[in-house]
Amino acid sequence: MKTFKFGIIGAGRMGKIHTMNLMRIPGVKVKVVADPRIEEIKEWADNLGIPTVVPDWHFVINDPEIDAVVITSPTVFHAEMITTAANGGKHIFTEKPLSHDLASAKKVLSVLEKIDVKVQVAFHKRFDHNYKKIHDTVISGQIGEPYLIRMTTRDPSIPNIEFVRKSGGIFFDFFIHDFDNIRFVTSSEVEEIYASGNVRWDPEIKNAGDFDTAFTVLKMKCGTLCVIDASRQAAYGYDQRMEVFGSKGQITSLNDRETNVELKNKQVTMIDNPLRDFQHRYIDSYAAEIQDFVKCLFEDKMPSVTPKDGYEAILIAEAATRSAKENKTIKVDELRRIS
Amino acid sequence: MKTFKFGIIGAGRMGKIHTMNLMRIPGVKVKVVADPRIEEIKEWADNLGIPTVVPDWHFVINDPEIDAVVITSPTVFHAEMITTAANGGKHIFTEKPLSHDLASAKKVLSVLEKIDVKVQVAFHKRFDHNYKKIHDTVISGQIGEPYLIRMTTRDPSIPNIEFVRKSGGIFFDFFIHDFDNIRFVTSSEVEEIYASGNVRWDPEIKNAGDFDTAFTVLKMKCGTLCVIDASRQAAYGYDQRMEVFGSKGQITSLNDRETNVELKNKQVTMIDNPLRDFQHRYIDSYAAEIQDFVKCLFEDKMPSVTPKDGYEAILIAEAATRSAKENKTIKVDELRRIS
Amino acid sequence: MKTFKFGIIGAGRMGKIHTMNLMRIPGVKVKVVADPRIEEIKEWADNLGIPTVVPDWHFVINDPEIDAVVITSPTVFHAEMITTAANGGKHIFTEKPLSHDLASAKKVLSVLEKIDVKVQVAFHKRFDHNYKKIHDTVISGQIGEPYLIRMTTRDPSIPNIEFVRKSGGIFFDFFIHDFDNIRFVTSSEVEEIYASGNVRWDPEIKNAGDFDTAFTVLKMKCGTLCVIDASRQAAYGYDQRMEVFGSKGQITSLNDRETNVELKNKQVTMIDNPLRDFQHRYIDSYAAEIQDFVKCLFEDKMPSVTPKDGYEAILIAEAATRSAKENKTIKVDELRRIS
Amino acid sequence: MKTFKFGIIGAGRMGKIHTMNLMRIPGVKVKVVADPRIEEIKEWADNLGIPTVVPDWHFVINDPEIDAVVITSPTVFHAEMITTAANGGKHIFTEKPLSHDLASAKKVLSVLEKIDVKVQVAFHKRFDHNYKKIHDTVISGQIGEPYLIRMTTRDPSIPNIEFVRKSGGIFFDFFIHDFDNIRFVTSSEVEEIYASGNVRWDPEIKNAGDFDTAFTVLKMKCGTLCVIDASRQAAYGYDQRMEVFGSKGQITSLNDRETNVELKNKQVTMIDNPLRDFQHRYIDSYAAEIQDFVKCLFEDKMPSVTPKDGYEAILIAEAATRSAKENKTIKVDELRRIS
Repeated sequence: MKTFKFGIIGAGRMGKIHTMNLMRIPGVKVKVVADPRIEEIKEWADNLGIPTVVPDWHFVINDPEIDAVVITSPTVFHAEMITTAANGGKHIFTEKPLSHDLASAKKVLSVLEKIDVKVQVAFHKRFDHNYKKIHDTVISGQIGEPYLIRMTTRDPSIPNIEFVRKSGGIFFDFFIHDFDNIRFVTSSEVEEIYASGNVRWDPEIKNAGDFDTAFTVLKMKCGTLCVIDASRQAAYGYDQRMEVFGSKGQITSLNDRETNVELKNKQVTMIDNPLRDFQHRYIDSYAAEIQDFVKCLFEDKMPSVTPKDGYEAILIAEAATRSAKENKTIKVDELRRIS
Repeated sequence: MKTFKFGIIGAGRMGKIHTMNLMRIPGVKVKVVADPRIEEIKEWADNLGIPTVVPDWHFVINDPEIDAVVITSPTVFHAEMITTAANGGKHIFTEKPLSHDLASAKKVLSVLEKIDVKVQVAFHKRFDHNYKKIHDTVISGQIGEPYLIRMTTRDPSIPNIEFVRKSGGIFFDFFIHDFDNIRFVTSSEVEEIYASGNVRWDPEIKNAGDFDTAFTVLKMKCGTLCVIDASRQAAYGYDQRMEVFGSKGQITSLNDRETNVELKNKQVTMIDNPLRDFQHRYIDSYAAEIQDFVKCLFEDKMPSVTPKDGYEAILIAEAATRSAKENKTIKVDELRRIS
Repeated sequence: MKTFKFGIIGAGRMGKIHTMNLMRIPGVKVKVVADPRIEEIKEWADNLGIPTVVPDWHFVINDPEIDAVVITSPTVFHAEMITTAANGGKHIFTEKPLSHDLASAKKVLSVLEKIDVKVQVAFHKRFDHNYKKIHDTVISGQIGEPYLIRMTTRDPSIPNIEFVRKSGGIFFDFFIHDFDNIRFVTSSEVEEIYASGNVRWDPEIKNAGDFDTAFTVLKMKCGTLCVIDASRQAAYGYDQRMEVFGSKGQITSLNDRETNVELKNKQVTMIDNPLRDFQHRYIDSYAAEIQDFVKCLFEDKMPSVTPKDGYEAILIAEAATRSAKENKTIKVDELRRIS
Repeated sequence: MKTFKFGIIGAGRMGKIHTMNLMRIPGVKVKVVADPRIEEIKEWADNLGIPTVVPDWHFVINDPEIDAVVITSPTVFHAEMITTAANGGKHIFTEKPLSHDLASAKKVLSVLEKIDVKVQVAFHKRFDHNYKKIHDTVISGQIGEPYLIRMTTRDPSIPNIEFVRKSGGIFFDFFIHDFDNIRFVTSSEVEEIYASGNVRWDPEIKNAGDFDTAFTVLKMKCGTLCVIDASRQAAYGYDQRMEVFGSKGQITSLNDRETNVELKNKQVTMIDNPLRDFQHRYIDSYAAEIQDFVKCLFEDKMPSVTPKDGYEAILIAEAATRSAKENKTIKVDELRRIS
């Protein structure tokens, strides 16, 4: 049986999750982890039996034994790492977004189109049990043609301001999964976008030129109207919902909860809040997406989530960012032409 | 259009509810109310425009203009009032139970069998939207043959001990609706019963020879096993549920609540408790059952809930009472023979 | 006890509902109904014991015995009827909207400000058990400051095209309850609006210059972002929901359903769809709002839903209509100045 | 770091699940698997990297390197294997029940009391997220004193008749987890039991002297009344619920479902059925219970689920079996004395 050797680039929260999931897949070996915080990483890698930890990611790409890399470094490095890894002939599983700006995303896409490696962008919501059921139900025609879509995405607590500053803004960093998901569910592209944001949680975010609370309205080419609302914080946990209203019915995903237990006292009936963070909500989705990537390696097939998907999500994020700043609707194809 | 003239016997809580519901039905006139607490009743009757209030119920039955009576007096009077009213040629809508003991219930039944008046026993749960849907679904065959039934019935707060003493005991006063409902839903009779009770809420109830917390297990002739649990008090409100498990599926009724609103804070998600008492939960059932009775008068049809139904429920109550006292199973048909 | 004599102007669906509810209130007498469809109305009025039915509404206003009128005629007549009734010294309970266009609404408002009669606009959602609980919870501060609001309003089936043509458009006729509700819940006014519509159900609606599917995004002066989505039709019934996300939590109202029964078969668990239409969902709200109006008459207090509320809702509707047509955001105060 | 070496005795469904879970625990090595079906097991063990597969379980116990064994063989072998392993100085994680009859269970218990090895009986429901929350909430006093308990346990499909014949009957094989759970949740012992069974699914089960549908009513020494209902089959999946009604409130666990998605069409709203079998429902509980056992080994503590717990559950099962056969209540302490 063939074994695929992986190198991990970036061993922060997501890097660790992907590594653990990879190591449980038969036929996969994690040979090396690259991360500048080498002291912090060493013990973790040792415990898992990963032989090598290096500070410099080029070491991974220059190792001819490595078949594939997992990129989970900060967004600003994505473009360069992806391009270098692809040129080095490595298959790539990369965290979103493809890049931190539209121009470089376009460049990455054009590089990848010419090189024969497999690249998967980590839009894990496509692999979530709830969102996947929505997608499959819509595709099956059970709710007819989609007319209205509502999505909600809210984090349990606001990230530190340093993270926000490097994030590319709420539309690049936060909405991007939902932009992808709407393309996935509707099988259609965005025609026009209107975005509207506000700062309610932390005035520092305003100074950083970003929002912490926002709505995005998208008109799809198929005619579907979508609205996504987002908040960088929610008192009650991690809120992740979607609803598609169609000509024949409606499908709604609610939040997962820790238990299915109801407690009644004299005053009220209480149930659990939504799961508290992405590590709990998407634990199975993260495993499923990287299993799917490894399956593509074994079966020599292209991954289902492509660099093109990564690029389109960024294009929408850019359009949303401009709309919110200029307080007007933006046509995505016009932005596509000028960028 | 014919008008039916009614007399009300007993104007306590249920008497008032039935009177209000009657007065909203076209073709019905409430002519007289009989209740010994005449001073308390007078103002209420005046406000409703009911011309006559009398202390003695015989007055109602002796009035040749009266077509039908509603009996809501204490249980101990039921047998005599029903018999007298029937002999007086009045149609009868009577609160359950038919009588306070098995022997007199049998006598009432034999009297009614010989007289051509319409008699309906107030098993309002048959008219409740939730229980009715369970009944109709079971009858339709959608869940196949019923194998197991679970019912829950719990009052929001314990009645005063005087009421308990006159009630005939928890199986006569409290379980009786559920005994009827199980016959209604299964279309079958009880073969054998095992009951088990306890006193948890109020030691006075023990002194009165009764229980405040109990289970009843019923084996139906059709083979269905049923269990009913009951409590004279529940911290969180009025709990009324039923579940029928069948060969092809299951049907469950949950409690109705005041609103369909969910409130989330940092700790939990809260929904409303069950509706707080029978006046709120069964407000529409009470209206529906008496409308059905009036419909039978207009269409000259026999009511769907018969004196026989009233008698069978009492027979089961008596069997349950004996089972709990003697701590053994009781065969209902044996009890039928000896009583 | 004083009796208030009412005249009903317009006896369509809503006129009949309000009449029935009025007649159950002690101290109220419905003396006359005015509706040009006199033949159709006569029998209904007779059955209820309403003595007089007239074709011309002026008859009602000219009757010096009449204390108050209920106006439920088509929208185009509202302005004239309200003005005339007020000038005639009648108290007024009027269906929304106050008028079919902004200019005449402004005129009505300025007339009413000078006359001492009680006027209530029929925004019944304020009296709905679910929406009321949301309002009260927000006001109590339990969810902190509101940051994001989502509302959904969908009719079970598309109205006939004649109705749509006279309706003033989806923002005047359909969204208007939700525009009012958002002002009610946030205790704030709209700063800016963006609306976006589509025609998916019936191409005739496009010819009529209207939409059947739409989103409205509102930025409130208090900073809250709101989005309302609407559809003139929904396969699964009448969809009426609201969710307020705040700094300390969230409150969500779900739909009411016919029963609380769950049915499981081999494939799925089934529960009831939302109640099928407004007559079922809002049956208690209609009763509550008109009881509240009568209470104001008896206690000589101003109604809680005022002509000003009616005007503000129309101003927002006009802004939304313009936004959707011009595909740009509209500042409500600018519209207020120029209109 | 110390490593504990495990031998697995029995590699059927549960044996495989426990092995997989063990292998994910740091500090654990699975050295050998014993199962007579050696050909079927070999490939599975190879893939997992388990070096040795043997047909005879004595081989495992005679290996001085083995620290602990996992026993998942058919019930009839439990008593002998546990006794032998304990005498061989091995720690033991054993599937329930401790034995197939009461007499030998008593003997096992008396042997184990004299030997200093750690023994855990696999009552995994104690480790289930839902049941654990019920237990913790009851212990915390939030619902006050427990008065009534209802449990439901239903398998998705009837086992083959060979399994049923060797199972010891529905009370030994099926109810036993719930008998344990009720002791766990109430912290009390059973005073008296009444059981009632029926055969509805498969007449062969009647020939085998067993039931496929049953109720058990337990009176606990603390006064709590409990009822458990069970069915060997359920059309809609694996049904596992519990409800504790107490003096201050109630706690209910509902079933887990595959997704939290609601689908509405013209007729109904559909949600997922309960998870389809024990492998899906209890996947995390199985991992948690064996992690807890390994933790006890590392920390040199006695496991929380003891041989005594295993014995008590069997005593209750025997009482239930007799009650159902003799159709009368059984006092558990009397059975304890005579057995």
